[in-house]
Amino acid sequence: MSPVQPSLSMDTLNPNIKVLEYAVRGPLVIRAGEIEKELEQDVKKPFAEVIRANNGDCHAMGQVYITFIRQVLALVTYPPLLKDPSFPADAKERARAILKACRGSSVGSYTDSPGIEIIRRHVADYIETRDGIPADWQNIIIGSGATDVIRKFLKLLICNVDNNESGCMIPIPQYPLYSATLTEFGIHQIGYYLDESRNWGLDIAELQRAITEARKVCYPRALVIINPGNPTGQVLTRENIEEIIKFAYKEKLFLLADEVYQNNVYAPGSKFYSFKKVLTEMGEPYCSMELASFMSCSKGFMGECGLRGGYVEVINMGPQVKAMFLKSISAMVCPTVIGQACLDTIVRPPQKGEPSYESFMKEKNDLLESLKLRAKMVADSFNSMEGFSCNTVQGAMYAFPRITLPEKAIEAAKKEGKQPDAFYAFELLENTGICVIPGSGFGQQPGTYHFRTTILPQPDKLKKMLKKFAEFHAQFIKKYS
Amino acid sequence: MSPVQPSLSMDTLNPNIKVLEYAVRGPLVIRAGEIEKELEQDVKKPFAEVIRANNGDCHAMGQVYITFIRQVLALVTYPPLLKDPSFPADAKERARAILKACRGSSVGSYTDSPGIEIIRRHVADYIETRDGIPADWQNIIIGSGATDVIRKFLKLLICNVDNNESGCMIPIPQYPLYSATLTEFGIHQIGYYLDESRNWGLDIAELQRAITEARKVCYPRALVIINPGNPTGQVLTRENIEEIIKFAYKEKLFLLADEVYQNNVYAPGSKFYSFKKVLTEMGEPYCSMELASFMSCSKGFMGECGLRGGYVEVINMGPQVKAMFLKSISAMVCPTVIGQACLDTIVRPPQKGEPSYESFMKEKNDLLESLKLRAKMVADSFNSMEGFSCNTVQGAMYAFPRITLPEKAIEAAKKEGKQPDAFYAFELLENTGICVIPGSGFGQQPGTYHFRTTILPQPDKLKKMLKKFAEFHAQFIKKYS
Repeated sequence: MSPVQPSLSMDTLNPNIKVLEYAVRGPLVIRAGEIEKELEQDVKKPFAEVIRANNGDCHAMGQVYITFIRQVLALVTYPPLLKDPSFPADAKERARAILKACRGSSVGSYTDSPGIEIIRRHVADYIETRDGIPADWQNIIIGSGATDVIRKFLKLLICNVDNNESGCMIPIPQYPLYSATLTEFGIHQIGYYLDESRNWGLDIAELQRAITEARKVCYPRALVIINPGNPTGQVLTRENIEEIIKFAYKEKLFLLADEVYQNNVYAPGSKFYSFKKVLTEMGEPYCSMELASFMSCSKGFMGECGLRGGYVEVINMGPQVKAMFLKSISAMVCPTVIGQACLDTIVRPPQKGEPSYESFMKEKNDLLESLKLRAKMVADSFNSMEGFSCNTVQGAMYAFPRITLPEKAIEAAKKEGKQPDAFYAFELLENTGICVIPGSGFGQQPGTYHFRTTILPQPDKLKKMLKKFAEFHAQFIKKYS
Repeated sequence: MSPVQPSLSMDTLNPNIKVLEYAVRGPLVIRAGEIEKELEQDVKKPFAEVIRANNGDCHAMGQVYITFIRQVLALVTYPPLLKDPSFPADAKERARAILKACRGSSVGSYTDSPGIEIIRRHVADYIETRDGIPADWQNIIIGSGATDVIRKFLKLLICNVDNNESGCMIPIPQYPLYSATLTEFGIHQIGYYLDESRNWGLDIAELQRAITEARKVCYPRALVIINPGNPTGQVLTRENIEEIIKFAYKEKLFLLADEVYQNNVYAPGSKFYSFKKVLTEMGEPYCSMELASFMSCSKGFMGECGLRGGYVEVINMGPQVKAMFLKSISAMVCPTVIGQACLDTIVRPPQKGEPSYESFMKEKNDLLESLKLRAKMVADSFNSMEGFSCNTVQGAMYAFPRITLPEKAIEAAKKEGKQPDAFYAFELLENTGICVIPGSGFGQQPGTYHFRTTILPQPDKLKKMLKKFAEFHAQFIKKYS
């Protein structure tokens, strides 16, 4: 026993932190890390390595960086390289422009809290080109990753209105950043189920059910849509987006569009429409609705998760509220300059005629083409296994197959105090080294079981992984039937 | 008028965000930015440039990066440079070690939420060497800057205990990160005045006064000490630190030691003692007290503010609480890998005999020597001006002189609805381009006036700045006397 009575005990700890959960970095992932250490120490296992299919960590799964991006970043980090003839002229031009916009011409300086002005302008240009609709650079707030800007934004909603806590609608299944952050912030989580039978589309009747029930216990303020979907991989149709916008208008909700997978669309016939584009093209009153759209350097074709770059575009926010938003981020000083510079290379890639254009396009297209093949490979493989059904992975980087578990497995899970899908995922991990996240970490219809796997392992490894998975699954079914 | 009723209005905005203030990026700094734009557009001013003496932004003020640091960062960012013979072998060795510890050997991968294990180990080694006392790498949590880890830590304290909100003691004057974050988190701010007459040391009687008053309205949980001081530049004596530790023990407070300026000590006779070292050497019961110590890449000799790297070492935290702390940071995914890599170069600099050792030491020592001269130059200059008194700048990067303002100036300020010191600082900015932060942004004894200036402008520019300052001050006094 310590002779000192602790000032910070479980009784005096932030109660919201006690209850929050973040499955993507939860017990399964911790166990995966332990197994990796055991393998390093030559502990005998029925597999040689852990395959981390648990999170969208592209480079960790062998994806190679885009040369142009890293050239620009090396140049801004160590400017003597600007004299190195092996770096292409367009990379140098980008680097010089970024350095010129840094105080003291150094990435070691603080920037304005919402980011470097020219990079915010480049983001606005990118959005304008994407949507064919004007974008104002002053509506762009850059952060250290989309997670960072999403959290900075959600914080604004913390408020008791008419003695009710704020509520925020999120999809179920959802990316646990949302559930964890809402729990931490004391904002009521209003889950609406995605419709698995319609390839995880949004059903307006379900949105209506969810908000009607929620109004008894909280004050609904905002609606989160993840498109393309995480963990579900759907790409919303334009018609579905229009329905959602009309619903949000009727219910006076702030639209939060998590569009970080906007470059990851694979399925024939699927196309990404930004909420901003659809809402603007719908005209009044919809084009005057409040909307925040989030984007990241971590996904797409670049997959630069570790550099931490992202942005939000906020439109139709009241000017006083916007001033408060800007003030609130100033206490976090500024986002990482390298993350900002990375974002710049993504929204301002090499242009036709520039020396890096051909190689950049080839690297980008090869990567997206390969992801497209893997998206199909994963869904097809799961659909060939007994008791599995997997929707088409239209976009993003994940499959979220449904799995029918034998009664005996469900009982065995109960005995161990585990959710049945977590029980399955642990067995999978211990027997094959494959790490996936059980559906219970994202939410699912009661009585159904799923898991999320990424499509990110390189094609050869993915093939092996799916084969091992199928073998494990056959044995598991045999064992528990 | 918008045809849409906003979901997020001033009435429904997070009330804590409405009231928070962050002077270091407040109205004066916004005005300085406007003036810079006006100068670009050739608006006539009585000066040619804005001198941003408002924040500790080293590189922005012309400080040059340390070559070794940037070489390592360029190498990890763009690994083909590992074959470039112009990079030294020790920088390459550091870069290879970092890349090996990154999943997929890429800085584009996510890391564990508390940071990369080997970098946490190197931080622990650094602390062990600094203090001569063991450090456990598992007590090190890396973040995207000290600001980030300080906020992550303070969040744990949000809790109503016996129906009282938590309270946290902070120095007055203080760095506004603390006041802004406590306001945002709804933690009661317990200000204790630093003793200007004792070169901004801590007076235990004043700590006692502050906590006794605060116990009537909140539940005091923690004590923040900034050493070396920001904005006040003092370096605490070992005796003073011992007194503070005894006070915190008696009052059952979690010690939060903001030690980001640990490499910035200039005054003869002044020495940095870490709270961990002193508390450990005091033996039981003090060595079992809970302590969090914060460090950053942004200050010291490196001044890499924009890269966002920092850490906290937490000792004697209960294991359950620590598990909750680790869980709570997982929803923020991970700190920027480049910031982590930067931290690695600082805690593991080139060693004697390695190729970069001599140049690294020269760059580091020249820089610290120059800061030492500037610290003295600034205090001496202010002390030579009428109505100024400035304590010795023993450490950190700031002077916080006291200034006596004429009655007429105080009246003029009142008429404009400004604090008198803010009025002075605005006049200074508009007339000379020099941007400093008024003492009211940091807190000060009622009826006294101060401002904070950095000592960071390069020596020639600093000399000019102080001369202009003196001229302005003489005119100001003349105008209002």
